[in-house]
Amino acid sequence: MPQQPEPQNGDALNIALERRLQSLIDGKTKPVGSLGRIEELAMQVAKLQGTLRPDTSSCGLTLFAGDHGMASAGVSAYPQTVTRQMLLNFLAGGAAANAFSDALGVSMQVVDAGVAGEPVEHPALLSRRIRGGTNNAIEGPAMSEDECSAALATGELLGAESRQPVVAFGDMGIGNTAAASLVAAKLTGTDVARLTGRGAGLDDAGLERKRTLLERAAVRTAPQLEARDALAEYAGFELVMIAGAMLGAAGARRLVLVDGFICTAAALAALRIEPSIGSALVFAHRSAESGHDPLLAALDAQPLLDLGLRLGEGTGALLAWPLVQAAGAFLRDMASFDSAGVDGPA
Amino acid sequence: MPQQPEPQNGDALNIALERRLQSLIDGKTKPVGSLGRIEELAMQVAKLQGTLRPDTSSCGLTLFAGDHGMASAGVSAYPQTVTRQMLLNFLAGGAAANAFSDALGVSMQVVDAGVAGEPVEHPALLSRRIRGGTNNAIEGPAMSEDECSAALATGELLGAESRQPVVAFGDMGIGNTAAASLVAAKLTGTDVARLTGRGAGLDDAGLERKRTLLERAAVRTAPQLEARDALAEYAGFELVMIAGAMLGAAGARRLVLVDGFICTAAALAALRIEPSIGSALVFAHRSAESGHDPLLAALDAQPLLDLGLRLGEGTGALLAWPLVQAAGAFLRDMASFDSAGVDGPA
Repeated sequence: MPQQPEPQNGDALNIALERRLQSLIDGKTKPVGSLGRIEELAMQVAKLQGTLRPDTSSCGLTLFAGDHGMASAGVSAYPQTVTRQMLLNFLAGGAAANAFSDALGVSMQVVDAGVAGEPVEHPALLSRRIRGGTNNAIEGPAMSEDECSAALATGELLGAESRQPVVAFGDMGIGNTAAASLVAAKLTGTDVARLTGRGAGLDDAGLERKRTLLERAAVRTAPQLEARDALAEYAGFELVMIAGAMLGAAGARRLVLVDGFICTAAALAALRIEPSIGSALVFAHRSAESGHDPLLAALDAQPLLDLGLRLGEGTGALLAWPLVQAAGAFLRDMASFDSAGVDGPA
Repeated sequence: MPQQPEPQNGDALNIALERRLQSLIDGKTKPVGSLGRIEELAMQVAKLQGTLRPDTSSCGLTLFAGDHGMASAGVSAYPQTVTRQMLLNFLAGGAAANAFSDALGVSMQVVDAGVAGEPVEHPALLSRRIRGGTNNAIEGPAMSEDECSAALATGELLGAESRQPVVAFGDMGIGNTAAASLVAAKLTGTDVARLTGRGAGLDDAGLERKRTLLERAAVRTAPQLEARDALAEYAGFELVMIAGAMLGAAGARRLVLVDGFICTAAALAALRIEPSIGSALVFAHRSAESGHDPLLAALDAQPLLDLGLRLGEGTGALLAWPLVQAAGAFLRDMASFDSAGVDGPA
């Protein structure tokens, strides 16, 4: 008789933990399965941390800002100056990411990944500038291989150093939906037009122009690319750093809340580099940016929220954080049928 | 020429406030409309409170428990004893509603609306017992008209006395999905079978039995009933008190987070009694209980969340509370393009 393969030690431990968790979850004072996605989240964070009592005590948001050479070509409704102005707005506490972070008890840090112009000086800003914006990716590679590696490594270190058990990443960069569309197209082998949306608010003519420009950018390279090549050819420094930060945070067993279109493209790149990080990723929301749906489908991801957001800055990830808090509390604090003396089904 | 009707003073004020709010929302440092449902929520709570700076500083959950004469007929997978046991579990802090409330900073109170057996004595329990459970509504009216009026008035007072600007209500009562299906069927003139689901977890045979029993209950009365008649014929005391509490809270301009199937049936009854409360109601989530979808459709309601929950206890309403916090913070705290010196679209 053929022998069954022995499970790896780690696998056996994981399977044992998963069984204990499922039994713990099903023994809580509620009908089996009646907390739906919250039960799944509880299972995910507990398995990731390797415990029956997961730590969901805090969440940190790291916001990465960077400029895109493509912005000058007309891929966005907004001028490139807005990236820098929004970086200052984050530092002054006036953006949506600030309002949401404060309301939901999330600590926030801001990283200059490569904003155009003179470096911004601010005590709260983490300066990790690769360069003052990428090259115009419509005409040639957005960055060199070395720059891409440096951005990945910088992000990975920041992610690995996260102090919170749950982390979210956010993006700011005029032109970065264009970059994300190209990265996603090259990683999935999809026609870029299918992944191109209105970004911050293009009208029909603007969308048509953006599609034409992105198709021109796409034909420069093979239909499908390896992750590092797709990033170097088309990404922004902020997108590459987010991919790196996801790798670093997931490696340190932090639960990673994946925001919208830009962050999902970064997650896809990170997953291609290291597929095992999937167990740490939580897809937070379905963006109204039209390329997000096919991208989520390619990842077989079912986001938690669908609220018509299309802002970026990690705002969708922030809104999923309370669901993680609830999931952790459910697992740690709820009584069991036995402990509470509640009868089961008749 | 025919004269335009003069708008009422209140209407004119509301229209002026709405214009100012829309201008405030569109002036925030984000693309117009890019926060989707959060912008709608911000508008709703600000209009309800009649202010540009809505108070979303706290949320309170009131949980109503009551027993159903129908439970003994076999409409639920669980024995009737569970209502009382869960009431004790709420008071001991062991239920999902407790875990979620604690995790999300919501204060919780528990009301005995009519639980079977001797009255529970507990310092934290609000005793508002109408009677120790309703009559079996399959055979005759669940309660008298006087009992129904008393339950509505009790709920209305509790709702009107809410100290928090945002309130949620929750239900506990073995058999109460059956009651809610009948109430909803009679308010909408729908066949009760379409609104009947598995509740806490009936199998196929149990669901078939429940449908048969509810059809028997439904033929006792006319296909469509007035709200008070539908409640007296079929509801539980907890469901009627929730309808009353929604009326009281909405009348006091509290934002009301409507939980799942039971609470949506209560909201429908409350709306029939006083349609103007619609402006205070936020439908929090789409329940996995199969009758919820057609009921939401009848109300033309688009819930905020869809997480596969089917527990009740206000758990879905609690998970929507952070979205209200974010919406309030967005309106109060975010900078405008002008104030932050950020450029608009090119």
